[in-house]
Amino acid sequence: MSVLPLSVEKVIEEFGRLPGVGPKSAARMAYHFLRSSRKDASRLAKVLLEMEEKVVDCTMCFNVSDSEVCAICSSPLRDSSKICIVEDPLDVVAFENAGVFKGVYFVLGGLISPADGIGADELRFKELKARINAVLKDHEAIEIIIATNPNLEGEATSNYITDMISSMEVGEKVKVSRLAMGLPTGADLEYADQLTLKRSFEGRNIL
Amino acid sequence: MSVLPLSVEKVIEEFGRLPGVGPKSAARMAYHFLRSSRKDASRLAKVLLEMEEKVVDCTMCFNVSDSEVCAICSSPLRDSSKICIVEDPLDVVAFENAGVFKGVYFVLGGLISPADGIGADELRFKELKARINAVLKDHEAIEIIIATNPNLEGEATSNYITDMISSMEVGEKVKVSRLAMGLPTGADLEYADQLTLKRSFEGRNIL
Repeated sequence: MSVLPLSVEKVIEEFGRLPGVGPKSAARMAYHFLRSSRKDASRLAKVLLEMEEKVVDCTMCFNVSDSEVCAICSSPLRDSSKICIVEDPLDVVAFENAGVFKGVYFVLGGLISPADGIGADELRFKELKARINAVLKDHEAIEIIIATNPNLEGEATSNYITDMISSMEVGEKVKVSRLAMGLPTGADLEYADQLTLKRSFEGRNIL
Repeated sequence: MSVLPLSVEKVIEEFGRLPGVGPKSAARMAYHFLRSSRKDASRLAKVLLEMEEKVVDCTMCFNVSDSEVCAICSSPLRDSSKICIVEDPLDVVAFENAGVFKGVYFVLGGLISPADGIGADELRFKELKARINAVLKDHEAIEIIIATNPNLEGEATSNYITDMISSMEVGEKVKVSRLAMGLPTGADLEYADQLTLKRSFEGRNIL
């Protein structure tokens, strides 16, 4: 006999699909709606349906957007000759919050990961190629900043992108860079892993 | 300028209201629906609305239920002369999973917590009193097992219940017990906090 009503079990099951949510947290979330305010459940349901209905991929950068071309791609204040390639929309949020980049983005939709069965075909490399060619029509020189995560999948994806750009024979017109790797702010050298330390050393800046 | 579409921000806000969900996790949850399967969002919306519509409080024990009297209270296999008093429905789930108790429950709906502004009036003490009186009509002797959490709020609530039962002048007919406190299975005595050790010592069992 299931202790909780079936309708509650179903909510727990759906919450359990969310990233980083185990069965116990999922139960606590479902119960939250039963305890405090049952209206919270319909409010969450409403915004979920609204999001599903309204959100589209920007046709230029593939970031989530509520219009065909997103606010960043359509802004005259952004430098469209600089394209920062990221894995997903949350990376765009991170960059925007840091306020360090005034170019545009390109959202790949994932990283190459043989372990998870994600090959190059699943990602937006064809669209990236088309995007680079389109930008090259408007600009003499462009910069591609590869901002994939500093892990195996991020490396593989970065390599794939550099190979792809090499094969495009765009020569000097496209400068490709990648985010620096090294010690994060506030890190303790003593506790840094070997690879981080190695990269931090190799990438040392002459003062 | 907000980076994410408003409809996504709204979903993040609602997820952020859930217990144990910070802004970053909320964003990752919202994004989960945009990435893998956008249909997951409407499925969650559907089950949330269904839960809101179908779930009621059991009129006997106040546990969540899909019928007026829950499956436990209406089961002829349960001993209605033993009432286990718990804070919330998830505690019932924990007990049922342990399979140790064959009586019935009473869900208080919270614990007395002056710090959070939760007084006795907010909880189901009146309903508990009525329930005990109703059960006393059917049974010569009953047992009340207080199963509130072993913390300040749980103590205060437990004391309130024992005082309430004393004032009911039910004499020998109602036996009141409380869950044992002590070292949890697999604990390391060396790392146990002082209060746990103290209670474990005071409650030691003669062999």
